Amino acid sequence: MLIHSATQLLTLSGGPQRGGALGSLGIIENGAVLVRDEKIVSVGRTDELRAAYPGEPGLDATGCMVMPGFVDPHTHVIWGGDRAREFEMRLEGAKYLDILAAGGGIISTVRATRTASIEALIAQTRPRLLRMFATGTTTAEAKSGYGLQTATELRLLKALLALDDEGPMDLAITFLGAHAIAPEYTLAGGGQDDPQGYTDLVCETMLPIVRQWWETHAPRLPLPFVDVFCENKAFTLEQSRQVLTVACSLGFPVKIHADEFDNLGGASMAVELGAASADHLVKTSDADIAALGKSDTVAVSLPCTPFGLAEPEYTPAQKILDADGILALATDCNPGTAWNESMQFVIALACRYMGLTPAQAIAASTINSAHAIRRADKIGSLEEGKQADLLVMSVPDYRHLGYRFGTNLVKQVIKRGRVYSVDVGYYRTA
Amino acid sequence: MLIHSATQLLTLSGGPQRGGALGSLGIIENGAVLVRDEKIVSVGRTDELRAAYPGEPGLDATGCMVMPGFVDPHTHVIWGGDRAREFEMRLEGAKYLDILAAGGGIISTVRATRTASIEALIAQTRPRLLRMFATGTTTAEAKSGYGLQTATELRLLKALLALDDEGPMDLAITFLGAHAIAPEYTLAGGGQDDPQGYTDLVCETMLPIVRQWWETHAPRLPLPFVDVFCENKAFTLEQSRQVLTVACSLGFPVKIHADEFDNLGGASMAVELGAASADHLVKTSDADIAALGKSDTVAVSLPCTPFGLAEPEYTPAQKILDADGILALATDCNPGTAWNESMQFVIALACRYMGLTPAQAIAASTINSAHAIRRADKIGSLEEGKQADLLVMSVPDYRHLGYRFGTNLVKQVIKRGRVYSVDVGYYRTA
Repeated sequence: MLIHSATQLLTLSGGPQRGGALGSLGIIENGAVLVRDEKIVSVGRTDELRAAYPGEPGLDATGCMVMPGFVDPHTHVIWGGDRAREFEMRLEGAKYLDILAAGGGIISTVRATRTASIEALIAQTRPRLLRMFATGTTTAEAKSGYGLQTATELRLLKALLALDDEGPMDLAITFLGAHAIAPEYTLAGGGQDDPQGYTDLVCETMLPIVRQWWETHAPRLPLPFVDVFCENKAFTLEQSRQVLTVACSLGFPVKIHADEFDNLGGASMAVELGAASADHLVKTSDADIAALGKSDTVAVSLPCTPFGLAEPEYTPAQKILDADGILALATDCNPGTAWNESMQFVIALACRYMGLTPAQAIAASTINSAHAIRRADKIGSLEEGKQADLLVMSVPDYRHLGYRFGTNLVKQVIKRGRVYSVDVGYYRTA
Repeated sequence: MLIHSATQLLTLSGGPQRGGALGSLGIIENGAVLVRDEKIVSVGRTDELRAAYPGEPGLDATGCMVMPGFVDPHTHVIWGGDRAREFEMRLEGAKYLDILAAGGGIISTVRATRTASIEALIAQTRPRLLRMFATGTTTAEAKSGYGLQTATELRLLKALLALDDEGPMDLAITFLGAHAIAPEYTLAGGGQDDPQGYTDLVCETMLPIVRQWWETHAPRLPLPFVDVFCENKAFTLEQSRQVLTVACSLGFPVKIHADEFDNLGGASMAVELGAASADHLVKTSDADIAALGKSDTVAVSLPCTPFGLAEPEYTPAQKILDADGILALATDCNPGTAWNESMQFVIALACRYMGLTPAQAIAASTINSAHAIRRADKIGSLEEGKQADLLVMSVPDYRHLGYRFGTNLVKQVIKRGRVYSVDVGYYRTA
């Protein structure tokens, strides 16, 4: 199939984009992509590819911009229950402790998740993945982490494997048993105040079990990422180091949540441990930014989280670029702070509140975010041999991303060479 | 047709909601609406309506929230060209004058609009209206104002009448010849610096012509609104008064753009002239807010505009409610500052940056915004005898509006009794 006549074809070729190089779109005007089976065979100008492949069936992208599918490298997309009432309480002026007393906060999601069957978890997560896919995300990272007990965490991993298998979107799965201190280990949760006890449980019991379980249940897939929430009231720097060090020793690739509310030094530790990414990075120190800039650890910014909470401070993107860091963007889709599935909206925020140009935000949402989940060899750009994951956008120019907000500009998603129409519209049914 | 089994049915009954009364949703649990032809015949509990109308064909809204269609009372949805490059220039640090020198700003839209045929204008506007409809807006106000010369302004009105006629969304049309000083009357535009000359042209030539033209072309419709941009660098308070006074004397209902960047006193004047609404209201003084609070002039807030420009200041909603004002919300959809078609996103902003609860934001986007275009007798709530404009939302609870952002939560739009499916999804085409 020849996708042809794109007003602009963004190739994003050449690998992850570091520092000031961010925003190299590799634009081909009147561009075309030849797709066979699940792969990209050739990328070039429409006239060239038409001449080289006469008679090839076509998909006309006249008037449209064509680009790689979005890669969303940080989501908490599987959970039970919702927290709409908690959102309203916050607007009515309720404080954190009021919300906790009313049964809100992350632990409310943990309780709802623990009592949900795997069928219920899959049924609730599927429409969120559908929203991601319909807004152009062709691969998303997805974390466990609302179980905080071995059996539920394994149920979440099993559900995510089933949803990945179901498709059409691909998932990069992460084990986040160290998302919060389990309620059994906190006074507020009715247990003893023993965060170290829970950290030891994650390290000594969960991680070895997850490894063994994964090798049984997903023998053909590489091990999932292991992630930890390094933050005051979650895991200290030393506890985070303990979790990630054990994970590394078991062969897991690792990631970290760092500096969402306080700077504990998690990003530098992530660099030291060779983490794939350090995520959030709002309160990150200059020293941590310098460390990221000298590493291959991707700096993943999650602008929906400050937006969701109406907080004024976002990731200092320009500092990260000045330090030569590899910057990526993600939704952080989750029920507490940021229930948004659309990478297009992330781009709109990044342009306004992080000072990125549309071109920079697009590169941070494709090739760089693919690198953040260590799949930049297969996805994130339109290059020969890569997986045929691309978007036909109903706009003539890439700058419409960022410029426009609040709606979905995708016309068609092409996933592993198959065409899915998702254009805005309606049909009369009665 | 009986739309039944809604988890929550929001009636918004009882008329426009003033001051502290804002947010009365009139919720019926397990609710139903009986629709015949284009009208609502009955609203109540599912068991009651099923008993009263046995054998009525059903539309099952199980698990869904049902509410009135959104009414968007302020849009500039018809224009030629786009300003994506200008958006990028601003992010790259270009100043207003650089943008003007590069051919940007509102006058660039005026030039592109003037050279566009009516067919081109209709073709460009239709997908924007489709995005509005698919995100749940069943009636939208739509302004002319990118012509700034009689012939183009009439072409815009003609295009809007055609689009209203085409449906399915209804339009409330506004003549905004006084949107900006036409380039022929400014030094920057290559003319003489004569804003009063343009004001006189609007008053003495355009308004009488528009009135006569309307009576010929739309004899069965009431006269359109007349609006003016009362702001420094646009129309002074006295010029705005001149425009609106002439409009009133010709029988037009009126509106005003006031206090987007500076407080000139436009809102109080709007009250004095009995305007349907005063819109923007960011820099509004306490005296102007007090005047609005004592009037039936609706205070229309446009939160997408500060968001679009990444400016920190929004309409002081709580002050307007404290003064007993009638608050409404709108998209301000336009190519310069806020290209967003979705009222759902407006609600997400209003909750975060204006301190409204989801219930308040919903009332401000339905019954109160219907009042801002003087159609609250026909639309804006689910009440017997009103037009059957309603939404089946794919959420169980109204609080999901505001809480969630970036995607479209509408499942079905029912417009004048006809059902349009717009649920997020995709279909394989190859």
